[in-house]
Amino acid sequence: MHDQTALLFELFVIFLAAKLLGEIFERLLLPAVLGEILAGALLGPFALGFVHPNDTLPSITEIGAIFVLFHAGLEVSPQGLIRVGRKALLVAVLGIIVPFVLGFGYMHWRGDVVTESIFVGAAMVATSVGITARVLGDLGVLASRTAKIILGAAVFDDILGMLLLALIEGLAHGGGVQWGRLAILAGEASVFALFMIFLGPRIVSRIRPGMARLSTRNAPLIIALAVCMGLSYASAKIGMAAIIGAFFAGMIFAEYSPEWDLLPRVHAITEFLGPFFFFSIGSQLNVRLFRGEVLVVAAVVSLLAVISKVVGCALPLIKEGWSSSLRVGVGMMPRGEVALIVALIGLNSKIVTQATYAVVVFMAAVTTLLAPPLLRYLFRGEAKVADVVRT
Amino acid sequence: MHDQTALLFELFVIFLAAKLLGEIFERLLLPAVLGEILAGALLGPFALGFVHPNDTLPSITEIGAIFVLFHAGLEVSPQGLIRVGRKALLVAVLGIIVPFVLGFGYMHWRGDVVTESIFVGAAMVATSVGITARVLGDLGVLASRTAKIILGAAVFDDILGMLLLALIEGLAHGGGVQWGRLAILAGEASVFALFMIFLGPRIVSRIRPGMARLSTRNAPLIIALAVCMGLSYASAKIGMAAIIGAFFAGMIFAEYSPEWDLLPRVHAITEFLGPFFFFSIGSQLNVRLFRGEVLVVAAVVSLLAVISKVVGCALPLIKEGWSSSLRVGVGMMPRGEVALIVALIGLNSKIVTQATYAVVVFMAAVTTLLAPPLLRYLFRGEAKVADVVRT
Repeated sequence: MHDQTALLFELFVIFLAAKLLGEIFERLLLPAVLGEILAGALLGPFALGFVHPNDTLPSITEIGAIFVLFHAGLEVSPQGLIRVGRKALLVAVLGIIVPFVLGFGYMHWRGDVVTESIFVGAAMVATSVGITARVLGDLGVLASRTAKIILGAAVFDDILGMLLLALIEGLAHGGGVQWGRLAILAGEASVFALFMIFLGPRIVSRIRPGMARLSTRNAPLIIALAVCMGLSYASAKIGMAAIIGAFFAGMIFAEYSPEWDLLPRVHAITEFLGPFFFFSIGSQLNVRLFRGEVLVVAAVVSLLAVISKVVGCALPLIKEGWSSSLRVGVGMMPRGEVALIVALIGLNSKIVTQATYAVVVFMAAVTTLLAPPLLRYLFRGEAKVADVVRT
Repeated sequence: MHDQTALLFELFVIFLAAKLLGEIFERLLLPAVLGEILAGALLGPFALGFVHPNDTLPSITEIGAIFVLFHAGLEVSPQGLIRVGRKALLVAVLGIIVPFVLGFGYMHWRGDVVTESIFVGAAMVATSVGITARVLGDLGVLASRTAKIILGAAVFDDILGMLLLALIEGLAHGGGVQWGRLAILAGEASVFALFMIFLGPRIVSRIRPGMARLSTRNAPLIIALAVCMGLSYASAKIGMAAIIGAFFAGMIFAEYSPEWDLLPRVHAITEFLGPFFFFSIGSQLNVRLFRGEVLVVAAVVSLLAVISKVVGCALPLIKEGWSSSLRVGVGMMPRGEVALIVALIGLNSKIVTQATYAVVVFMAAVTTLLAPPLLRYLFRGEAKVADVVRT
């Protein structure tokens, strides 16, 4: 009973602190998610030591991460993705290769071991579609061609990031680079992704008439949740991260999300569980490490993350002019959940040191902080006073 | 990492099994919640031994219970309650006294110790407002005077049940009947309840204009969730059950729930977390105990629970005729979450034996199973083909 009271206290304090700092960040026009992470860093064991979330809350944190990615997947329609086509895919691919090569190259040149360097490179890859979409929505330019390319590319980017994460998970388990195992995992992950993109939505559309006949209230939500947990388990079971399954589970329901009103409902669950995940990311961050060499490495990695993403993503669009290609490049800049999850997996499996973890979190924060003001500046001509839809 | 996979597997299996049996029960026109409990009993350690939810899932179960009660509270408007007035209160009070006296009397006469007898009496008290409301809604008679008295009384009943539960919690901690401590707890609980009913909603209406100015998306939901966790912690801290705080947290937001669209969002969270709680109730039920003496006691307690509630609730309405009073009595019959939580608290604090726990769960199941068909029969003249609103 007293453990129960302690758990309730932690839940309350974590939720309140995360949301309070989120609110403060929003008022400063900064992404709320960074406020939630900061709350974790401040209250966590490395600073005030007020909360030790990893003693009692690991399962809630884990489920929080799953819902953050499930929710992200729900906003990604495979149909829309296939339509946006090759331009976005090209942007995504170059936007992955350039950062990975630069990140890996720099860390390896510094003398880090191969696996740790791969982790840093991988963390520099994935664009956070949520933050970009939010800023473009606030500016009221979501309908522009540039915005469509950014969002399409960010989504491809997420999927490719998921594949890379699958490989990374393999690394974490294997304890080193085992090329045979990596190849098998790459195959598995690709089949998984292709299956989800092309067959998943069809299966959902098949079972759709049957769902209407179910007696359970909210049957579509229930089934989506069951599929989310099932695929999370399945991807953990075959050696990938659980969140990969959650992301694809969201994606195969994306097409029917408006019809079944899934997004606001899953969003409510994410609103509740997500903060525990972001808080936990912060709580594992040793803020005292940010000095001397670590700070230099963090600054260099952040700079490389900015440059590599802008250059990589702008390159395929260079013919369309300086302005368009720069907008796309900057729009692809913010790294978010995926970078942090990569870092966390590395930290938990002891491949990545506390210092490198701090570097990656720093990089994710810098890119996420820089993108919104830069985007506002680059779109200053087109931006309308938007009706900010608060869902 | 492997613990994580095991957790995901349990989450998936528990959710799927609970919802599958819920669906089957719904099709048989039985309450889904009993299907979820049965799933736990079947897969739990006492039967198939497939899942041991208390090893890894206690925090999720706990939060599930909190959301089940938070959601119930959201449907209880203090204003509406004050309006329904004295008749409903009288029904509720007699509907509590008669079952408690009969239940306590029978168990004590059988030779059970005082504390265990009090637990059984208390578990026989609280009407489950959810199941009654659902059946009346399905019949399309929610607007009738009888229905309004039933719902009003069921709500008073819930609140009085919460107060009784607060006393029970005191018993569980104290290890025996300490009248002084009980009196203090009764005072605390009453002040808590009165504060929540009369002042809570006013505080919410005060902060309402400020909420609109917050930058956080879904600010009302976030604040309601924070208050829910805060009050759950507060009531656990002062020695009451956490769910009491959750219930009252729901109640103080009930008035504004339509404006802020809180109910469907909290419902989504409850849809996800609730099944883990009901599954856990079932999983702690030793179905093998249902034979010989335990079965006899279970049958007697169930019979007493039916008779005492019908008689106690019908008595104040006897002047309005046989038909009305019987309808109200039967409408008040189903015991639900609160009975089960009382039993669970008793079991976990080792005041109640496995056998008595089984008796209470049996009683809750019987009263819940009997009420819907009886209500359908008693309302057969008035019932319309209802638009069953599936939210």
